[in-house]
Amino acid sequence: MKTDIDRLMQEENIDVLWVTGSMMNNPDMVYFTGIHNASTINLFKLRDKPPIIFHDNFERDEVAKSGLKTQSYIDKFPFDKYLKEARGNVLKAYSTWFKAFFIETCITSSRVAIFGKKDISYTYAIIKALKRELPQVEFIGYFKDSLLKQARMTKSQAEVEQIRQMGNVTTQIVAKVANLLSNQKVKDNKLVNKGGHPITVKEIKKLIRLWLVERGADNPEGTIFAIGHDAGVPHNAGDPNGFLELGKPIVFDIFPCEAGGGYFYDFTRTWCLGYATDEVQKLHAQVLKVHHKIISELRPNRPFRDFQKRASELFTKMGHVTIEKQFNVTEGYIHCIGHGLGLNVHENPFSGISAGERDILTPGIVFTIEPGLYYPSKNIGVRIEDTIYLNPQGKFEILADYPYDLVIPVKN
Amino acid sequence: MKTDIDRLMQEENIDVLWVTGSMMNNPDMVYFTGIHNASTINLFKLRDKPPIIFHDNFERDEVAKSGLKTQSYIDKFPFDKYLKEARGNVLKAYSTWFKAFFIETCITSSRVAIFGKKDISYTYAIIKALKRELPQVEFIGYFKDSLLKQARMTKSQAEVEQIRQMGNVTTQIVAKVANLLSNQKVKDNKLVNKGGHPITVKEIKKLIRLWLVERGADNPEGTIFAIGHDAGVPHNAGDPNGFLELGKPIVFDIFPCEAGGGYFYDFTRTWCLGYATDEVQKLHAQVLKVHHKIISELRPNRPFRDFQKRASELFTKMGHVTIEKQFNVTEGYIHCIGHGLGLNVHENPFSGISAGERDILTPGIVFTIEPGLYYPSKNIGVRIEDTIYLNPQGKFEILADYPYDLVIPVKN
Repeated sequence: MKTDIDRLMQEENIDVLWVTGSMMNNPDMVYFTGIHNASTINLFKLRDKPPIIFHDNFERDEVAKSGLKTQSYIDKFPFDKYLKEARGNVLKAYSTWFKAFFIETCITSSRVAIFGKKDISYTYAIIKALKRELPQVEFIGYFKDSLLKQARMTKSQAEVEQIRQMGNVTTQIVAKVANLLSNQKVKDNKLVNKGGHPITVKEIKKLIRLWLVERGADNPEGTIFAIGHDAGVPHNAGDPNGFLELGKPIVFDIFPCEAGGGYFYDFTRTWCLGYATDEVQKLHAQVLKVHHKIISELRPNRPFRDFQKRASELFTKMGHVTIEKQFNVTEGYIHCIGHGLGLNVHENPFSGISAGERDILTPGIVFTIEPGLYYPSKNIGVRIEDTIYLNPQGKFEILADYPYDLVIPVKN
Repeated sequence: MKTDIDRLMQEENIDVLWVTGSMMNNPDMVYFTGIHNASTINLFKLRDKPPIIFHDNFERDEVAKSGLKTQSYIDKFPFDKYLKEARGNVLKAYSTWFKAFFIETCITSSRVAIFGKKDISYTYAIIKALKRELPQVEFIGYFKDSLLKQARMTKSQAEVEQIRQMGNVTTQIVAKVANLLSNQKVKDNKLVNKGGHPITVKEIKKLIRLWLVERGADNPEGTIFAIGHDAGVPHNAGDPNGFLELGKPIVFDIFPCEAGGGYFYDFTRTWCLGYATDEVQKLHAQVLKVHHKIISELRPNRPFRDFQKRASELFTKMGHVTIEKQFNVTEGYIHCIGHGLGLNVHENPFSGISAGERDILTPGIVFTIEPGLYYPSKNIGVRIEDTIYLNPQGKFEILADYPYDLVIPVKN
């Protein structure tokens, strides 16, 4: 949580957090500022001090909406002055300008941790130039478990309510899609529209986007609506021109967020239109069994990875090959059991091979459980996913309930 | 254009382009791959070779949609092996894994230019680790005029048609908004809905998003619908809870892109509902005069910055203070005359104080002309913006025409 940041800075000997980029679609920034329309700002947080936003003058009204302390560059650091001094060399001007600004902010011999989603070419050039101007400053990047990712891993009550609200939006839309599919005509084993033309995946996704936007949400990472073979490849988003054929498994994985890059929800159901083959029914029943079993066995303060191992054990007993036994497998249980989520759709804690000592089921986390079985050679994929909150009292709670039915009835 | 890339690599002595991140909302990646659903891939382009995508196995179907050469890591570089060798140190595993992969790709003593919009903390950590593993490799970032920005500055015919199509979408939506505003009831000098409640900016923006999504577009950078005082601050996006008051100037600046982070359009009109005061009419007429004048004076192969100076000259003659005379001014002509656009809403060529020798009106560019006058203290802002294509024959063409009328008639 945000209240952990100063302690984490102390533990990791970080003097300054530097968060750069937009106030939209930029998780580490939005964590501090909320979602507003400023495209390029710099937020600094010194240890044991409140954050402060430095901004171009044009952005003054938007940054003020953050409620944080703000400071326009123009008052103290007019760029034209530095550009003149640098005789038109813009990078030199920018880095001396930044140096003046670091000196003003007392960031001159410090460990500065960098954050933000931004053009890496630009940012790398800036950091290189700054290192020349300020050799005493050490810039710190994080490969994983960044200080802010650690803080963000546990959620405040307000954050949980935002995620729950996105869960409500998600299940509303899933219900609308189910209802829509149930009410189409069938021709040649496919759903068709009023004109008798087969409905495509693209059309379903467009409706999903419209329904999301109507509810103040968005799907910046897309939506998976993958049928048959495509369902068998976990990150195949579905063929836009694919038809909705009866009996084929559909993996419908929807992970929307608050419009502009806010909190995510993550949810999957597997459906068959009209009927399911025995084989799909069997795999679906197995996945659902593991889903319930894992959720029932979750305990606070256990490594998340334990439950990936447990899921693999359960699937192995059912006769499936698993990624835990054989890393480069493409059929069977080839995914990890879940991941944390929040302002990123994937964040700590993790459960896969790279999970570490910080990937613990800590009270306050929000995470997914999403067992699946993947057989692309048989045109089958099955995944079931819910988003779960581990509350401060140690209880696990699915944030948005929805039935697990495999078969979506269709009109005869 | 893409066909310039090998020449630019030669000129700048770059051996490899490394583009990282998602195939969505990541301009330098989308330039090569188009928009698809893979979230983390690495694209390498060696000089005089076609690009190749390296990807996690899960992403194999999505990367294939790019039409480029692809290679799953798993075939040659199974991560579990490196993780075992690194005794669980994930960053070490990742960097030795990357090293093996660089060696395979012959990137071992090279100048590697980095690109992509991605978490900078993560990317900086990776580059630091790679520099330890591969001390002969020099990683290059660009503060401005990056090699890909230079290539992307001039557009192919296909790119121009994509931008033109977004222009059509944009003007369709602007017309729908104008029509909507004209057809509302007025009460207490404000537009009201059927229930008699004042309509808010938030409601207008929601409709704009829905209409964009219906047309396969999106507005990831937001939309400016700024009224009165807010119109006087160029990047104020408008108060979501603001009402639509008659007679106040509205700066409506809409910059949508193809959904998923494709080509942008950029367009602004200034409107007054019902009537405009003499002062606003005068300022609007001045801005429109400068708009037409600048467009009429554009010539190929001239520095874009010349036209910023020319606009300042024209506004100075009209009695306004300008940013060219006084950098930190907040009233008058305080913006630059325009910018290139494409996969970024702002890209080369630039016309402002930082513009350089590459910011030339080169045949093939697409750019905006957007003069404006800003008087927040008087609750006035006026901006008029069109997107223009300079074709290979040297002709300047507005890509989507739309009337410049200031007053939107409303119902009595």
